[in-house]
Amino acid sequence: MTESTKYLLPEDRIPKRWYNIQADLPKPLPAVLHPGTLQPVGPDDLAPLFPMELIMQEVSTEREVEIPEPVREVYRLWRPAPLFRAHRLEKALGTPAKIFYKYEGVSPAGSHKPNTAVAQAFYNKAAGVKRLSTETGAGQWGSSLAFAGNLFGLEVQVFQVRVSYDQKPYRRALMETYGARCLPSPSTETAYGRSVLERAPNHPGSLGIAISEAVEVAVQREDTKYALGSVLNHVLLHQTIIGLESMEQMEMAGAWPDVVVGCTGGGSNFAGIAFPFIGDALRGGRRARIVAVEPAACPSLTRGKYAYDFGDTAHMTPLTKMHTLGSTFTPPGFHAGGLRYHGMAPLVSHLKELGLIEATAYHQTECFAAGVTFARAEGIVPAPEANHAVKGAIEEALRCKREGRSETILFNLCGHGHFDMQAYIDYAAGKLTDQQYDPKELAMALSGLPSVPA
Amino acid sequence: MTESTKYLLPEDRIPKRWYNIQADLPKPLPAVLHPGTLQPVGPDDLAPLFPMELIMQEVSTEREVEIPEPVREVYRLWRPAPLFRAHRLEKALGTPAKIFYKYEGVSPAGSHKPNTAVAQAFYNKAAGVKRLSTETGAGQWGSSLAFAGNLFGLEVQVFQVRVSYDQKPYRRALMETYGARCLPSPSTETAYGRSVLERAPNHPGSLGIAISEAVEVAVQREDTKYALGSVLNHVLLHQTIIGLESMEQMEMAGAWPDVVVGCTGGGSNFAGIAFPFIGDALRGGRRARIVAVEPAACPSLTRGKYAYDFGDTAHMTPLTKMHTLGSTFTPPGFHAGGLRYHGMAPLVSHLKELGLIEATAYHQTECFAAGVTFARAEGIVPAPEANHAVKGAIEEALRCKREGRSETILFNLCGHGHFDMQAYIDYAAGKLTDQQYDPKELAMALSGLPSVPA
Repeated sequence: MTESTKYLLPEDRIPKRWYNIQADLPKPLPAVLHPGTLQPVGPDDLAPLFPMELIMQEVSTEREVEIPEPVREVYRLWRPAPLFRAHRLEKALGTPAKIFYKYEGVSPAGSHKPNTAVAQAFYNKAAGVKRLSTETGAGQWGSSLAFAGNLFGLEVQVFQVRVSYDQKPYRRALMETYGARCLPSPSTETAYGRSVLERAPNHPGSLGIAISEAVEVAVQREDTKYALGSVLNHVLLHQTIIGLESMEQMEMAGAWPDVVVGCTGGGSNFAGIAFPFIGDALRGGRRARIVAVEPAACPSLTRGKYAYDFGDTAHMTPLTKMHTLGSTFTPPGFHAGGLRYHGMAPLVSHLKELGLIEATAYHQTECFAAGVTFARAEGIVPAPEANHAVKGAIEEALRCKREGRSETILFNLCGHGHFDMQAYIDYAAGKLTDQQYDPKELAMALSGLPSVPA
Repeated sequence: MTESTKYLLPEDRIPKRWYNIQADLPKPLPAVLHPGTLQPVGPDDLAPLFPMELIMQEVSTEREVEIPEPVREVYRLWRPAPLFRAHRLEKALGTPAKIFYKYEGVSPAGSHKPNTAVAQAFYNKAAGVKRLSTETGAGQWGSSLAFAGNLFGLEVQVFQVRVSYDQKPYRRALMETYGARCLPSPSTETAYGRSVLERAPNHPGSLGIAISEAVEVAVQREDTKYALGSVLNHVLLHQTIIGLESMEQMEMAGAWPDVVVGCTGGGSNFAGIAFPFIGDALRGGRRARIVAVEPAACPSLTRGKYAYDFGDTAHMTPLTKMHTLGSTFTPPGFHAGGLRYHGMAPLVSHLKELGLIEATAYHQTECFAAGVTFARAEGIVPAPEANHAVKGAIEEALRCKREGRSETILFNLCGHGHFDMQAYIDYAAGKLTDQQYDPKELAMALSGLPSVPA
């Protein structure tokens, strides 16, 4: 091999602007609706939760949004993230395809999440906020916000789903090392948490409950705002730095992707790598196939309905049009905790409806098999979420092998699995099963979608 | 801040040669002795354990040893490793010192250990070896050899100290993900292991026993060799790539260290960053202070005796002259498992005797406090071992503050703590104590050193 293994950019090439795909959409995004009036929400409706700069980004149609210098300054701790050519994986698969991967696990918290956590902490600090509240499941997002909040002198309060709080103490330790306060949810700190505990003192918690607790805290305290790690437009905007860097690095490599692959839970890492390529094609650039890979046990893009729905279980959020399994749908337990969400980012859903992206779903054991193949070839042990993207990329590479095509595949390796090794232990022990969702429960959840006149 | 945060080298600047400090020693290293004859050992004595290329490196006095191209090819997966300027840590400490750190945690296994694991796997493969056996405590070395062996198509068998095997399943999962076979030691696979289990069926194991088992397997099988992760000259040689890259990166930064700091257990990461700077000074370059930081509970350099001793507890190894606490000394339990060794690399010991390096010792709670300070400033959560180097560097920076001196400090952050979060949990819970060694046991272990005529 004489071709490079990795493509690095110097830190003065950290992008100066995020890319806003709303500027290039052939059809604008459907409005966000107030759940009571069913009228479009205005900026003021969101002001109790978010600082105005983030609300403005949520609705902006400007193509470029400047990245504040203090945010770029923090990004320098790990960005630009490396782009790798997976020479050894190609060889292991015997494929004529060229496989590239962008590696976001180099961030201190180990995933792409700090890209938006740092930005959100900055804008909140600038708005005079003292404290951020948020929810987390396995802890990728909670640890990222803990990291970012600490750097900007913000208190961070994380409501962690109780079953994860108890079972995954390592991520909690990471949050606490960064100085955040981490509480098991349902907690006694909120009225909603107490109401749940009264009915079920041993409730294991859920992301929906944790969101409700974090929102309650933010709404009640003047000096506290809420932060969300995926789904929203401004979160996806911040993640576009992944794709923007990748475009420059693909040019360094003298290549351009025929296929771009990302895994999807709420949609943020997928949007991060994909949107800049989609936007470039919409503006007349070369078009790549864009493939979203989701877990078969929680298949919002492939089996959900494109409809208005709530973002949380307790129905405190506005209504957004998205691919949803229904806000009351409970996905079965599987290891890629970051992909266990009933809905999909409205922007990703919209692009799916416009035919600009494809979606596919895989079960967890085949994704772990792909992850082990990747680790043995490339060294990095991927996060369970990232294994879905690895699986998607390997399938594309094997298709190229069958078809004798030397395509270029780019995927986003959104994080490492260092805090998720229990999943690999279970996989190696043959204990991992492909959980199926209950079709009756899905049908019921979908039948309960809020009724919104067209 | 307009100065850079990190200094990156392109992968074609991965050094082409390791640096051998034996070429520049003002006095040669004392001979290694056969434990029976007390005569210097020859290459043939070591042939059952190591391939001849590594034995030749062990005794070479050539200044430069070429890095084989297939080894550089694997290094490209993560090397050159980044050098960071710790702007935020400097600010948090309020020091006029400039603090730089070389970060070896970017390797797939998360520490500097793959630098030599890859080289050892390559030379063994080239010599026709089919299988490597080794020991590991917490698992840093075992996972690195598992990673490297897999890439070169070698079977890897790791004897892991039973108490770690049971208590730290994440590192074991990493070894198994890379395809290695990991056994709790004492095991029933070796005569020595069985003899230990006969006497004590629930024996928790020790590094000494695990070494004896790994050596036994290697000696008995023609197609199997043994691999060691520290202490030996060839291991330290391979690690010099750390310092060689750092020198180039310090030049990029327009700075040069007044102080170089590393933590020491067996001595390999310390040697890796320090030897190239020491050698440069010996050849007329600028001299830096070189500071080794060791755990106060296992203080071979600061409290040990410089004498001939065995490398293992079962007395199967040759005798080397080194700083030792006695081969029967059992250090108390503490979290920096990689630093719990009774001896010190002969080369590091020799440099200490020549007055070319300083040594200091700290207890674990103050090292964890330093690690948390570092994590909150720089984001990266250091391994418990690396916390000793962080502590050493912070102490130097605080001295600079007291003295009003703007010195340049460089330290080696040899690995991340992602697999060691239990230690941070214990620290945060106030459960960490500063274990003291038993002075009587130390005196007894030192009185039992083998008698070697001067």
